[in-house]
Amino acid sequence: MQIASKRIHSGRVIDLDVDTVRFPDGSVGQLEMIRHPGAAAVVPFASDPRGKDPTVLLIQQYRYAANGLLIEIPAGRLNPGEAPQVCAHRELLEEVGVKAGRVERLTTIWTTPGFTDERIHLFWASDLTADKPAREPDEFIEVIPKPLSEALQMVRSGEISDAKTALSLLFVAGFILQH
Amino acid sequence: MQIASKRIHSGRVIDLDVDTVRFPDGSVGQLEMIRHPGAAAVVPFASDPRGKDPTVLLIQQYRYAANGLLIEIPAGRLNPGEAPQVCAHRELLEEVGVKAGRVERLTTIWTTPGFTDERIHLFWASDLTADKPAREPDEFIEVIPKPLSEALQMVRSGEISDAKTALSLLFVAGFILQH
Repeated sequence: MQIASKRIHSGRVIDLDVDTVRFPDGSVGQLEMIRHPGAAAVVPFASDPRGKDPTVLLIQQYRYAANGLLIEIPAGRLNPGEAPQVCAHRELLEEVGVKAGRVERLTTIWTTPGFTDERIHLFWASDLTADKPAREPDEFIEVIPKPLSEALQMVRSGEISDAKTALSLLFVAGFILQH
Repeated sequence: MQIASKRIHSGRVIDLDVDTVRFPDGSVGQLEMIRHPGAAAVVPFASDPRGKDPTVLLIQQYRYAANGLLIEIPAGRLNPGEAPQVCAHRELLEEVGVKAGRVERLTTIWTTPGFTDERIHLFWASDLTADKPAREPDEFIEVIPKPLSEALQMVRSGEISDAKTALSLLFVAGFILQH
């Protein structure tokens, strides 16, 4: 339970609070808490997801935190008041250049609840149509189509090491497509 | 590429830097970066993992970020210089009260690379023996044994919503046990 909260930093992406907290056993302590507005991420299927080994669209982007390129699914922060599913549609357009006829929810995860309240709402999308003119030029993002089986092998080998991406691919393969 | 780095906050769990960065296209910008020492997390099998529907030991703990209880696998931060596998053994003892005869690596993930360099090294463990006397009393953690099939259903339903936990369970079920 929160007793007090002190804003240490108001940032572009995140805020940092140091909160004074009463724990379930009655003890009181201080916790650093990164405040994040939440995000949406989406597995885009470029072919019929119920077909044999459907194609997913991954993106490769430079991540300063990783000091290099990571392979991920399209994702982004929620705008103020934005519904997660609307955000998923927007990120598909901005990062992959496609409109999705269908966007379905997978689940919602806490990315790392020890120090942040960030949640990511996970989706999968299909019935994609190219919408190139709306796409912003972006030097940092490359779209990489992969058969789902190969994407899963990249999770297994560690080539895909972004948590939301690995989890979404395993979730969709294990629970949605059940192949 | 880092041009400059300014430490905004040195904390108990995390540090916050605001870095000046040159991006791959040559542009320069500022990024907030949460520095974290990394962590280890482990799926403990209380019965033979190759047997029919083996039992995994989950933990339920209060998470301030989530304003309530989350169901997770044992996990914790790496001590300075500590090998991830050693950390996994230590967390099994501290959080579950067991020694593991066998600890095997699954993979390593970036929890949320948009704003932190935190990586979690994921493992599974078996050949557990109770080591109650070494366990610290902890009001915040309850051990919850579950058949793996039920744990996976809890991922599917969203009852398990911690990313490292959901990913580790799907990873071990899909790639290690192949049942």
